[in-house]
This record gives sequence, C-alpha cells and structure tokens, in this order.
Amino acid sequence: MSRFWSPIVHALEPYTPGEQPKHQSFIKLNTNENPWGPSPRALEAIKDASGDALRLYPDPIASDLRESIASTFQLSADHIFAGNGSDEVLAHAFNAFFCGKDPVLFPEITYAFYPTYCKLYSIEHRMVALTDDFRINLDQLQGPCGGVIIANPNAPTGIALPLEDIERVLKANPDVVVLVDEAYVDFGAESAVALVPQYDNLLVVQTFSKSRSLAGMRVGFAVGQPHLIEGLNRVKDSFNSYPLGRLSLVGALAAWDDTAWFEKTRNQIVADRERLTERMQGLGFTVLPSSTNFIFASHESVPAEQLLAGLREKGILVRHFKKERIRNWLRISIGTTEECDALLNTLEALL
Amino acid sequence: MSRFWSPIVHALEPYTPGEQPKHQSFIKLNTNENPWGPSPRALEAIKDASGDALRLYPDPIASDLRESIASTFQLSADHIFAGNGSDEVLAHAFNAFFCGKDPVLFPEITYAFYPTYCKLYSIEHRMVALTDDFRINLDQLQGPCGGVIIANPNAPTGIALPLEDIERVLKANPDVVVLVDEAYVDFGAESAVALVPQYDNLLVVQTFSKSRSLAGMRVGFAVGQPHLIEGLNRVKDSFNSYPLGRLSLVGALAAWDDTAWFEKTRNQIVADRERLTERMQGLGFTVLPSSTNFIFASHESVPAEQLLAGLREKGILVRHFKKERIRNWLRISIGTTEECDALLNTLEALL
Repeated sequence: MSRFWSPIVHALEPYTPGEQPKHQSFIKLNTNENPWGPSPRALEAIKDASGDALRLYPDPIASDLRESIASTFQLSADHIFAGNGSDEVLAHAFNAFFCGKDPVLFPEITYAFYPTYCKLYSIEHRMVALTDDFRINLDQLQGPCGGVIIANPNAPTGIALPLEDIERVLKANPDVVVLVDEAYVDFGAESAVALVPQYDNLLVVQTFSKSRSLAGMRVGFAVGQPHLIEGLNRVKDSFNSYPLGRLSLVGALAAWDDTAWFEKTRNQIVADRERLTERMQGLGFTVLPSSTNFIFASHESVPAEQLLAGLREKGILVRHFKKERIRNWLRISIGTTEECDALLNTLEALL
Repeated sequence: MSRFWSPIVHALEPYTPGEQPKHQSFIKLNTNENPWGPSPRALEAIKDASGDALRLYPDPIASDLRESIASTFQLSADHIFAGNGSDEVLAHAFNAFFCGKDPVLFPEITYAFYPTYCKLYSIEHRMVALTDDFRINLDQLQGPCGGVIIANPNAPTGIALPLEDIERVLKANPDVVVLVDEAYVDFGAESAVALVPQYDNLLVVQTFSKSRSLAGMRVGFAVGQPHLIEGLNRVKDSFNSYPLGRLSLVGALAAWDDTAWFEKTRNQIVADRERLTERMQGLGFTVLPSSTNFIFASHESVPAEQLLAGLREKGILVRHFKKERIRNWLRISIGTTEECDALLNTLEALL
C-alpha cells in the first residue's frame, strides 16, 4: 500500500504465474512448457544475431516475422500483430476492444489472466459456468455484451470446441469482438484463423511459448482483419514502440519456418499425452479429453492437494488451482517421454 | 477506424519512433543508439544462454539483474523494477502513479512519449514552457498536480539539471510522484538515484538502450522506495508476468557488470561529442550544452529541414521534430569517431 498509488492500483488482482524454480532440479510439469526445446534453426539464428547489431533498436513493426506468419495463413501482413508474449497481445486487445463497453463474457473456468486484465482496464465482466462435463456453455456466450473471450482449447480443462461452435459464437455476437485465445491450438484443435476473412469481429491470438518451444523469448501474435490490427497498433504505439527485441524477432521467425521440427515435436507430445492419459485412467484418474500439451486430471479417492504435495516432495511440479469447481484437479504438462514415465511411477507409489 | 475499437482508441496519439531503415547503408545518427556495440561479455552471455532452456519461461521478477543493479546503487533489490525497455517501465509508472489524479506536469519540450502515455491512461497533463535558453523552468513544476515528469538530461535539448534542482522539485511536490527519466544520465549528468533513500516520492527510470548499447534487447528499469516498486509490480503482474525474456536478462546482467567496457565506450562518446560540438560551432551552428549521447543544433543561416534533407541524400540520418519551438533544430546522435567526421565533412559541403 502506498499513498502514491493510482486509485486503480489498490483494486488490482495480479495474476500469479506458475512457480519458476531458479535451479533446474525439478521435473517441471507445472507451466505447460515444451519439453523438446526450440528448433535448432531458431537457436542458430539467435546466435548469429548476437552481435554488434544489438546496439540498434529492433524493427518496431516486426515486418519479417509478420510476413512469414501471414504467408502461412494465406493472408497479408496487415492481418498480423506481434507482441511481447501472448499475454501482452491479450492485454492490448482487452484495452483496444473491450474498454468502456458492456461487460465482456468468458467461461468461469479459463485462463485466470482474463479477469486480471478486466481489473487493469476497468472492464466489467460476466463469467459463464461450464457444463457438468467441463465444457463451455455456448448458449450463454451471447446477448448484450462488450465482447467474448474464449480460450480454445480451454485451459486448464484442455477441452477444444469445434470450429462450428466458434462460428456460432461469432454469428451470435456480430457487433463485438470475439477473442479466441489459441495458446494450445497446435496440439489438437482447429484454428479459427481460417474464419478471419469472413468475420470482421474475430481476433485470434497465438503464442510461440508452447508448440514453438520459445517461452523464454516471449513472442505472441494476433490474427484479425486489418481494422482490428490497426486498433492493436494504436495501443502498442502508445505504450512501447518496440515490444520485441532483435533476438526474439529472428528466433521466432526461424522457429516458425522450421515446420519439420514443429511437426516432429508436436506429434511426440500428442503421442505421449495419449499414452499418459490411458495409463492415468488405469490408476483411477478421471482425465478430461485434452487437445493441449497438458492434461487435467482428478483421482477417484486421493485429493489433488495431497498428490500435489507428494509429487513435489519427489521432485515433480504440477499445477493446482484453488478455485472451488476445480479444487480436486491437477493440471499436468506433458514432459518428455521419460518425464511422463517418472510421473507415472511416482503416482503409482503415492496412490 | 473501426466500430469495434474502444472509445479511447480513437483518441490516442501514438508515438512515432525514429526511422529504422531495414538495410544498414545509412550512417544512423537519428535514434541515439550507441555506436560502439554491446559489451563482448554480454554477447558471450547471450550466446551461452541460446540453448534448450529457451523452452522455459524466464524469471518473472528478474532477480539476478535486479540484485546486481541494486548492489551497484547500495540498495536492496526491492528498490528495483525491470521491464521491456524503459518505455514499458514509463508506461507502467504513468498507470501506477498518475491515473485518476490531477494533471501531471512536464516540460513542453521533452520526450514526446509522455503526452502519449497520458492519452493512453486518460491522464490530464499541463506542459510547462522552457526558458529562452531551452532550460527547464523549475518554478512552474509545482503547485497542485498529480505528478511531475522530468527527463534529466532533457531530450532533445540534451541539457541536464543539477541534483539540487531535482531535489527542489522533490521538496516542492511531496505528495505526488516525481518521475526522473534518466535515459541519458550516464553521458554527463548526476543521477537522482542517490536521493532515493531520502525521498519517498522519487522514481528514477534508466535504460540499457543508450550507455549499455543494448537497444535491440529492450531492457529498462526503475529505482524507487519499495512501496513504489510494489505499485509497478502490481501493474506488471496485471499485464504481462514475464516482460523480459531469458536472453534480455542474461545480456543486461553481463552488460551491467562489465564496467570497464561501459566506461571506455562512454568516455569515447563524451570525447567525440565535445569535439563535434566545437567543430560544428565553427561551422556556424548553435549547439546546446549536451550531457547526453546526442547534440541539439541549429544553424545560423541554413534551415534545419534543408540540412535534414541534404544529409539524408548523402546517406546520413539525423532527427528533426516538427514542433514549433524547435523546428529549426536537429538532434544528432554521437556516432563513431569516423561517423562524426563524415557528418562534419558532409555539413561542410552542404553549407
């Protein structure tokens, strides 16, 4: 507390990220990082760029990176906005499209940063309960509102909506922006980017932190029609002209272009997820159907907090949320094949 | 324009950064970059960190970097906040300390991003005219207000205030935050960091982009009493938990610790600045007394815009601002010794 704070600062409810232990002795299955490491071509590009040119400001509009992303999606670069991690992109989107409007709608169980952004920008929100089987209740994501935010696949449930459902939400809310946060889309969901040319109210956000394995570089982007991208650029250029450093730009570009590495590591994660799911079901867990690089699981008899503590004691970090509806569930990132095995062995010993 | 924009987005007046030509054929004296390149130890640290660990999120609170900065200033780390360039740090400071208050005060001629932040956060501001010799008018930086912002040295004038003057402003405004933006302080001004223990209303902001030659990495920081740093952290954790990537963190840390490189390159820039100033005075320029890595100069007979165009034609970029009071002035970054000579030769030919 300080008498110097702006009134709004007192009311903020800051997000708490998953624990980042300083020394890497844990098996870290708590923040949905990619176990396979970045594309070797990305690391090479970063090393090559680690020279004298770092004295110069980076390209403020991330031209090369945006061109490459746009070309993959068969769009022009004015459909792409790049920022310092998808968190920054999401923050700018909340500011650019939801401020000073009716309450925005999002599911009750979803990425916990959404209500935090609402506090930061004084945006009212209404949270919509999930169905009994933890699915997003589409019927309630409409009606007078200032915007809709959907994580697809949703987190921490891991469950994806099919593209028809996203389209239904877009059609039901033609006068407000529908933000689809696709942080995990590459692990099994259909991207709504394909709908961008048809819907002027659609903004899709993706990240390099998960399927591109560059969480340590902080790169995210948005895809939408140029009038939405221009709104994001106006906010960005009123906040920080150069959100992405030179190494983030070249690293992300090389990672995006290395589709072979992307496919290989993504497919391995999906295979390990399916194997882990089956084995955990055999141990008495209910596991929601995941389209992500994590699973959300609850045991039939042992409480989640007890497992959380037991795993931690054995050197394995997983994530637990204290929210009532999901208090007995654990979110477990898909690690390497060996890390999945270590998790299974430890769970067997704990149960 | 878009019907989906938040009302505030229409009213924004985004900042325009200096031109960043994509291919490096220009002598770039337009964005106050450091001509001498980053510390070799910083480049080494960045290369060493360009590996598998980039798959992991960075330390969200930049512990090692903050510890090292704090130790240099003989403070504890809870006096330091680190962000994605000093632009982001400034933006968070405006949000954290000036929102919802009386108008903030800053000089009429100063860093052009300050009024932009005010628009972004709906902060009223009052600009105070410089004196006839382009100095900050201290008498007017007081009275009922929501805060005071001083760039010291000021930009684009390059003129520094002595520490007694900063202290006078702090004493005259005990109930609001006085933000001292020290982007250029290392080139000849006294830092107000020394006053932090005595003044609970002082926040000092510095950057790695100028004297540490890491503009391409985007690292800035603030120094203030812990209650102010906590305010910044609350905003940051409501916006983006991880503002600094792993390579920015290790690069900035190594650059900070390499004091020999810092001293050597800084001293060279100061020496070249003095030589350039003297030579330009000989060519008929008025040059303001600079404590920065740029000079602000106006010719006795040839208009600034004509020189701007003539220099550009010869491959030299300098910065011009269309603001009435300084329309006949050019801001020229101090390049390498050779670049300063090239500038002088070109000016001689143009005059």
